[in-house]
Amino acid sequence: MLPRGRPRALGAAALLLLLLLLGFFLLDGRPRGAAACDPHPQADLGGHNRSDCVLPRPLPPKCELLHVAIVCAGHKTSRDVITLVKSLLFYRKNPLHLHLVTDAVARNILETLFHTWMVPAVRVSFYDADELKPQVSWIPNKHYSGLYGLMKLVLPGALPPDLARVIVLDTDVTFAADIAELWALFAHFSDEQVIGLVENQSDWYLGNLWRNHKPWPALGRGFNTGVILLWLDRLRQAGWKQMWKLTATQELLTLPATSLADQDIFNAVIKGHPALVRPLPCVWNVQLSDHTLAERCYLEAADIKAVHWNSPKKLRVKNKHVEFFRNLYLTFLEHDGNLLRRELFGCPSPRPPEAERLQQALAQLDEEDACFEFRQQQLTVHRVHITFLPHQPPPPRPHDVTLVAQLSMDRLQMLEALCRHWPGPMSLALYLTDAEAQQFLRFVEASEVLSARQDVAYHVVYREGPLYPINQIRNVALAQALTPYVFLTDIDFLPAYSLYDYLRASIEQLELGSGRKAALVVPAFETLHYQFSFPSSKADLLALLDAGSVHAFRHHEWPRGHTPTDYARWREAQAPYRVQWAVDYEPYVVVPRDCPRYDPRFVGFGWNKVAHVMELDAQEYEFLVLPEAFTIHLPHTPSLDISRFRSSTTYRGCLQALKDEFLQDLSRHYGAAALKYLTALQQP
Amino acid sequence: MLPRGRPRALGAAALLLLLLLLGFFLLDGRPRGAAACDPHPQADLGGHNRSDCVLPRPLPPKCELLHVAIVCAGHKTSRDVITLVKSLLFYRKNPLHLHLVTDAVARNILETLFHTWMVPAVRVSFYDADELKPQVSWIPNKHYSGLYGLMKLVLPGALPPDLARVIVLDTDVTFAADIAELWALFAHFSDEQVIGLVENQSDWYLGNLWRNHKPWPALGRGFNTGVILLWLDRLRQAGWKQMWKLTATQELLTLPATSLADQDIFNAVIKGHPALVRPLPCVWNVQLSDHTLAERCYLEAADIKAVHWNSPKKLRVKNKHVEFFRNLYLTFLEHDGNLLRRELFGCPSPRPPEAERLQQALAQLDEEDACFEFRQQQLTVHRVHITFLPHQPPPPRPHDVTLVAQLSMDRLQMLEALCRHWPGPMSLALYLTDAEAQQFLRFVEASEVLSARQDVAYHVVYREGPLYPINQIRNVALAQALTPYVFLTDIDFLPAYSLYDYLRASIEQLELGSGRKAALVVPAFETLHYQFSFPSSKADLLALLDAGSVHAFRHHEWPRGHTPTDYARWREAQAPYRVQWAVDYEPYVVVPRDCPRYDPRFVGFGWNKVAHVMELDAQEYEFLVLPEAFTIHLPHTPSLDISRFRSSTTYRGCLQALKDEFLQDLSRHYGAAALKYLTALQQP
Repeated sequence: MLPRGRPRALGAAALLLLLLLLGFFLLDGRPRGAAACDPHPQADLGGHNRSDCVLPRPLPPKCELLHVAIVCAGHKTSRDVITLVKSLLFYRKNPLHLHLVTDAVARNILETLFHTWMVPAVRVSFYDADELKPQVSWIPNKHYSGLYGLMKLVLPGALPPDLARVIVLDTDVTFAADIAELWALFAHFSDEQVIGLVENQSDWYLGNLWRNHKPWPALGRGFNTGVILLWLDRLRQAGWKQMWKLTATQELLTLPATSLADQDIFNAVIKGHPALVRPLPCVWNVQLSDHTLAERCYLEAADIKAVHWNSPKKLRVKNKHVEFFRNLYLTFLEHDGNLLRRELFGCPSPRPPEAERLQQALAQLDEEDACFEFRQQQLTVHRVHITFLPHQPPPPRPHDVTLVAQLSMDRLQMLEALCRHWPGPMSLALYLTDAEAQQFLRFVEASEVLSARQDVAYHVVYREGPLYPINQIRNVALAQALTPYVFLTDIDFLPAYSLYDYLRASIEQLELGSGRKAALVVPAFETLHYQFSFPSSKADLLALLDAGSVHAFRHHEWPRGHTPTDYARWREAQAPYRVQWAVDYEPYVVVPRDCPRYDPRFVGFGWNKVAHVMELDAQEYEFLVLPEAFTIHLPHTPSLDISRFRSSTTYRGCLQALKDEFLQDLSRHYGAAALKYLTALQQP
Repeated sequence: MLPRGRPRALGAAALLLLLLLLGFFLLDGRPRGAAACDPHPQADLGGHNRSDCVLPRPLPPKCELLHVAIVCAGHKTSRDVITLVKSLLFYRKNPLHLHLVTDAVARNILETLFHTWMVPAVRVSFYDADELKPQVSWIPNKHYSGLYGLMKLVLPGALPPDLARVIVLDTDVTFAADIAELWALFAHFSDEQVIGLVENQSDWYLGNLWRNHKPWPALGRGFNTGVILLWLDRLRQAGWKQMWKLTATQELLTLPATSLADQDIFNAVIKGHPALVRPLPCVWNVQLSDHTLAERCYLEAADIKAVHWNSPKKLRVKNKHVEFFRNLYLTFLEHDGNLLRRELFGCPSPRPPEAERLQQALAQLDEEDACFEFRQQQLTVHRVHITFLPHQPPPPRPHDVTLVAQLSMDRLQMLEALCRHWPGPMSLALYLTDAEAQQFLRFVEASEVLSARQDVAYHVVYREGPLYPINQIRNVALAQALTPYVFLTDIDFLPAYSLYDYLRASIEQLELGSGRKAALVVPAFETLHYQFSFPSSKADLLALLDAGSVHAFRHHEWPRGHTPTDYARWREAQAPYRVQWAVDYEPYVVVPRDCPRYDPRFVGFGWNKVAHVMELDAQEYEFLVLPEAFTIHLPHTPSLDISRFRSSTTYRGCLQALKDEFLQDLSRHYGAAALKYLTALQQP
């Protein structure tokens, strides 16, 4: 026992100590990491072993909005950004605001994508990269990322002035953890620190990798700028713009150009102002270049938080564990993006108005309705990735025609033949899963014929729901056609070799440009032969018809679809002739780009083209059959939807209901003129 | 200033305090949660808001082996287990040991699956559920899970005696976080606590849900047993077996049966011994039953860690946020399981020998080799899920024949017709992605014809790699055939309606059972018509042949494949006749189940059947053509592989290399007898 009197003083001191300690551990509700856990740039590249030092998981307040900036230009990089964003969304639990600095191509793609993706609690803002170009174009740069690689330097000026902090990401980064954990590291910045960066995981900046290798100046191994925490308002206050320009100008007196784009300049600035940088744990930017030293980081770390494919070889880079990282990347590449439409619980995240309307419409559907699947499918908004592959829009020409069609994976093998038959522009919509989109990409890259064509635009409509939304897919292809006319066809037809030239000549001759409202009919035929020598002229085709190896399309199974084209007259015709609409007529036609859209209510099999042609007629298009035009259907396996149609009375019943509703809408829209369709359909 | 002399004592006391405090926070390297964070079962159902109380993320030591036990029986539950395991694997960073208590069906499926999955650092042990049945079969149980629902009670006795702790999971649980975080909660157990459970998120155990509703006794709302932390050795020491049996026996004196299987008994035991239970945070078992109160938990919580579909309606359950949870579930349901073959960095995880051999073989491939893709594809071990759907093996019959074929998604529409043409057992292998497997499931469930058939076994071979591994897929179907004979066919053929009966009669007549080595040839025909009236007899077929609407199969494009069948003789034949092998012969045959396997080196298009028939001939099977047998090929789109074959000289070159290697192996195996194939092939 201690003598009386002392305990009081001791007790008070102990209480004080206890409070101090508790304060240290529990202030703001979470234990802070010990100082020994802080990564130190000059030390070594290693991660921090869990057994040595446990960093508690710091998190920003629930529902705090996190800001992410990404520079993105071109078709390929747009695809990359989507994979990055998928990995972000997979783990995130906070609302996100994406700030995308884009060229026109990327903006076009990503605007459509995010608009149709409708991810709750994700806001997207676009900034025009071309406007920023003058600010960096004076810097000679040898990096493969080009001018866009330098744009991260100007973000403090380009982003809204009230935006205080942002995470900046390269497009070749994949997340494997919640980005909120990265955002939380802002809380570790000292008052002076403005840029959070992970140390470089290569010896590049140490210099002397080869004779005369003279890198830009850097602190030790320098820092990698694939993942940056930018404290924007502090940067603006510190005069960042002047600072980096001055540094770059000075260095460029002795160095010919940047080798690693913005990264060289960031490192040179930091070399001069080491207090600006907050080093981040290596796991937030595991760099997978060829001679990466990243292994030291990730073998020790329990978690890998973000992976950076910072070799020009990207996924083809070779290192010991690349299979692991590739799997991680493929996980998000092939992940069904529709599943990322998950809402955030407990964070108020008002939906955009169209998403709200959609929710209400879906909520009003009756699950017991026999046609529930049809109703649901009609309402589904499909994610759309336009110009999935590089595409060069055709030069504006007054009579040009784009071939418009849609397909899914089971028709990919038609594409090469189609390219051979149609030398003009095409707008093709593909109905694919995320994983299939990658298969499609590989398919095109492996094909010399397809990869040589820059005038074929491929638009991916992502699969969702049990029925094939054929008209929604067609509408995507149609909306993306850039020429004044479109040839609306199906993917299993091959047009006559001369059709593209012939159509343009016909459009000119018939003076369709001067307001004549016409749909030019391309007569459709079919062959049942797997291997088939395609007729090189109308005379050849007539010979094959006579020999019985080619027929009018579906003349056995569904003669009404094409009978009005009048094949007998076509045989003899020398000039275009007008034909009249009749029930169930569904010819393949050439029309102006601003023709009516396909009615999206027709999902699955049946009446999808018939309704469109009916609407053309209701809008008083004349149907003119072209005497030298033809297209031939090749044999294929019947689709699943046609099998369902044949086997299911419910299916046929629902289709009938759709038809009836369509006709009602037609009457409402076109009034008495539409009566003729009702009458015609009522006849036996 | 304190007077001299005192500081020493004060300092010593303070140091002591400091050490105590540090010990409290940092013992075993991680801060422990404050007592205020502990969930309390009697309190309320809410989670713990991050702003009130932040539990640091506790983790077990890196590389600690975690044990998970799951009870699983039947085809459907086996599929569910795989989804659960995929969610576990996705987030895990520790080696896992799965303890699967299974019936014979589930064991057969899951053994094959894990064997072919080859996930590093995952060990699987099986325990026979049927052996455990007597221990629980005396308990009357009304729950839909049946007897298997009670088996969690006997795990302390059934699992190895040296297994100290285990996480027990229901098959309808989906993880959304690293299971190591759950495992780490064992560290929070007091010395008395033996069972970790999440409180029930429904009012069931409060009673009075309806008139005469009398649930089993429970503490308050009771606990849900979908996720359990079981401290096995403490349970064994505490006499668990006697304890639960005694409780159950006593309660069954007044209650007629368990309503919720094991959960009723666990709760009754805990009611009597409240000190046994360690309540777990609600986020580890978010219960999605119809009237769930789970919302109180997950709206407050930042993270949902594990979701439990504990309604008999499963994914069809209705609650406000079910779309969110469904998306989470679909994420793993459709996730490409191949991507989960990621190794664990920094944890020594020796691969199984076959995985090691495979790695070495893959490492030896030359990426510059023009046929690299072929080599890689041949070596690929595909994940295989046998009997993906409910299947009733055929009763043993001495002359029974199973139809064996393989297909991918684009041939699903053949299945109904095939079922109508072949009333006997079938073994069909499907080459699918994980997502396609779900589409396939829905397709079968929507089809009356298909869902009525219990004698058709569907085996899923998961897609991996660019070339179609046709012979590997065929071998899976062949290996799973359970009758003494197999009819080896392709999916786009429809057999004569009488073929099944006729084959069995022929096998009996020809006395194939008594050692006669024969391959019965089923002559193959083709039609080019979409819609086709299938001949009901040989006479009908001959009429169609004469009319030119049916031909011998590929007699225009590839006559060598079937010419040796001698169609002219077949027209007249009344009895089986023998024909000789010839180059490129590839008839459809009936052979004993133990026939040679298909050579897996043939991937993609070409020579896959030819090589098999050659090997039958090398093994001296006689080819006997059956006079009344026929099968007819329906038209379909050419496969992508045939397109690649036609367009790529490299592809054809690689196929030639495969052929040459196959012939060399044949010579090595069959010696001089195989010379005839070399000679035959060298002839022009």
